[in-house]
Amino acid sequence: TINGQALWHDLVTTAAYGGTEKGGICRLALTDEDAQVRSWFEQTCTALGCTVTYDSMGNQFARRPGTQNDLPPIMMGSHLDTQVTGGRFDGILGVLGGVAVLRALHTAGINTRHPLEVVNWTNEEGARFTPPMLASGVFGGAFTEEFAGSRPDAAGITLRQELERGGFVGAEQCGQHPATAYFELHIEQGPVLEAEERTIGVVTGVQGMRWYDVVVRGRSAHAGTTPMPMRKDALLAAAGMIEQVNAVAQAHAPEGLSTIGIITALPASSNVVPREVRFTVDLRNPSEPVLQAMEEDFLRRMDECAQKSDVHVSVTPTWNSPAVHFDSRCVACVKDSTHELGYSMRDIVSGAGHDAVYVSRVVPTAMIFVPCLHGVSHNEAESATPEDVTAGSNVLLHAVLKADQE
Amino acid sequence: TINGQALWHDLVTTAAYGGTEKGGICRLALTDEDAQVRSWFEQTCTALGCTVTYDSMGNQFARRPGTQNDLPPIMMGSHLDTQVTGGRFDGILGVLGGVAVLRALHTAGINTRHPLEVVNWTNEEGARFTPPMLASGVFGGAFTEEFAGSRPDAAGITLRQELERGGFVGAEQCGQHPATAYFELHIEQGPVLEAEERTIGVVTGVQGMRWYDVVVRGRSAHAGTTPMPMRKDALLAAAGMIEQVNAVAQAHAPEGLSTIGIITALPASSNVVPREVRFTVDLRNPSEPVLQAMEEDFLRRMDECAQKSDVHVSVTPTWNSPAVHFDSRCVACVKDSTHELGYSMRDIVSGAGHDAVYVSRVVPTAMIFVPCLHGVSHNEAESATPEDVTAGSNVLLHAVLKADQE
Ligand SMILES: NC(=O)NCCC(=O)O
Ligand SMILES: NC(=O)NCCC(=O)O
Repeated sequence: TINGQALWHDLVTTAAYGGTEKGGICRLALTDEDAQVRSWFEQTCTALGCTVTYDSMGNQFARRPGTQNDLPPIMMGSHLDTQVTGGRFDGILGVLGGVAVLRALHTAGINTRHPLEVVNWTNEEGARFTPPMLASGVFGGAFTEEFAGSRPDAAGITLRQELERGGFVGAEQCGQHPATAYFELHIEQGPVLEAEERTIGVVTGVQGMRWYDVVVRGRSAHAGTTPMPMRKDALLAAAGMIEQVNAVAQAHAPEGLSTIGIITALPASSNVVPREVRFTVDLRNPSEPVLQAMEEDFLRRMDECAQKSDVHVSVTPTWNSPAVHFDSRCVACVKDSTHELGYSMRDIVSGAGHDAVYVSRVVPTAMIFVPCLHGVSHNEAESATPEDVTAGSNVLLHAVLKADQE
Repeated sequence: TINGQALWHDLVTTAAYGGTEKGGICRLALTDEDAQVRSWFEQTCTALGCTVTYDSMGNQFARRPGTQNDLPPIMMGSHLDTQVTGGRFDGILGVLGGVAVLRALHTAGINTRHPLEVVNWTNEEGARFTPPMLASGVFGGAFTEEFAGSRPDAAGITLRQELERGGFVGAEQCGQHPATAYFELHIEQGPVLEAEERTIGVVTGVQGMRWYDVVVRGRSAHAGTTPMPMRKDALLAAAGMIEQVNAVAQAHAPEGLSTIGIITALPASSNVVPREVRFTVDLRNPSEPVLQAMEEDFLRRMDECAQKSDVHVSVTPTWNSPAVHFDSRCVACVKDSTHELGYSMRDIVSGAGHDAVYVSRVVPTAMIFVPCLHGVSHNEAESATPEDVTAGSNVLLHAVLKADQE
């Protein structure tokens, strides 16, 4: 079984790479902090008898040989990058939980039939390079490597440039990596398990999510001399749109979600009426048809706002990750293991995107959720208990052993 | 009289320093583009028989000797810096109109009693270093030199650092410069003169203006897993506030003005509910008591919004420029000159702040407005006719000659 203390120790150790004053982590993909944690991961897994390699997207694979090395590996994993104001568990637990599984087998001297691999996927968060799950997306065939490599950060530096700078480009072509199953352990990032006092969420799928860039164009004008009726204020128009984006979720309550995370106004001078405002929109729903209806509702509301405010609006879709249903046999491995270990559980649909979304397109996949404090995530206050993360890793261990028998 | 062709030529020549594709100018204070136009100004005035000096705030003084050089000078001027999306007349006309006056006297071989000076005031726009009219503010005693020098731009570079980098720091202490009168020629930057088809605005004063920084604090949260009712969305709350800031102006129509020019949201990630939004507010009114009422109305509305949205708001005043009434004798010089020259005119209160606002605290001051196309300013499309700018410069010339007789 899992050594919970060693797992917790790993969580504390890695939290130092990009650790913030408020106890969170700021470790954007492919920054120097990310390079530090990648190197920690490599050393730790090598010490547990693994070989560590990169593919062409900088995805990191730590491989523990099995007794039948001609079989495709069983993979575990998640990501080690974080949001700007990230917590200490989102993604990290899935990788370190995998390391804890390797350690348990290493200590007990157990050999599996299949080789086992722990994967650290590049740029899951989408906080530095949009969209999220970019490298697992290439792995799963959702994006081309050219598209992913050309994605720029806010300073215009591309993902490809940063992969090369860090020396993270491996010989293996991303996606040319056979595997027989993939298990991803993650904090729920939502309030359900905590509220119902369940230890394990058996994740049956992931809701659909769509992203858009909205550009509102008005007319810049002098703040001191332009009478109010003569203005075409792009920001005032955008304020109405922000409220209408919120109304889209309200109109599809309680499952519909809408979020505006980024906004900029130009020319950004205190005494100039903004001529242009740009903002992002994130719409989510577990049902694809409802999500489609939300999109139509959203587009209609943006047009109405633009007309009312006499400004121009354009909406560009930037990401569309359809609702996902995981592999029933992998889900059964998770559910049966949880049952045997005696943890309380429930089926759950993930609200967040995960590398498992795209990996599931090419490898039978399931996920394991554990509760996090108040459901708070993408926030430095993100927290989970040692008991829960150990329980989740135990389920991961047993699910992997079950899949190894099949 | 003024050589309108030479003046227009100067306007075209200087528009190249920081000229934009759309025919405007981006020449932020103390940038390399600003240094270029400063050097052009120095060379041009030297060729017209002037001595050019700097004071300690980088204000540039081109001095043409008079017949009685113990008399304090009569000053003309304005600023050569622009907004990010600035036009080709705002400020520039006041300096180049002054140059045109020097040229007219030089050509005609006329000597005034008082020395004449054309001043280029540093950082009038407030687009790079807030607040606006910073160096004329030090001249007029509204700001200390320490405060002004310590103002940072968006990259954290201070005005003092940039003054030193450019070599713009003169020996004379800013403010230790006696003068007997100051005349500033400017485009109206508003629609009144054009609408009434008048050539000259006799500016009797400037409206009051107040600036604030608003910070809204909510709670960051995951866009995919946080139910709408559990969010404290700082941006959604800010949207309501933006509309309420607008409502402040509507409640004091038609003279009340309110503008939000800058907004930022943190942590600025598409899938994170913003925890913090910052925006600027600019309130204006020709009447100080009404402006005070607008401020109180604004503060009350911000508190109401914060309570309704369950977020925290704080409002910090950053600039307060009270309503100004110009010197009656200087205003009379402008009005009488306009009358004698036969231009149509009207009295007008300036909606924009100008260097004249702060200079008027220590030197008898007046301003001359000419129409600009559709009242558009702080915009690359800003435009004025050769006829009108020549007329304005003629009024400037005659007002200066009148003041020289007093
Ligand atoms: N798990 C996670 O936070 N992934 C980021 C992608 C998303 O926005 O859901
Ligand atoms: N003239 C001018 O645009 N000055 C900037 C100060 C203001 O905002 O009014």
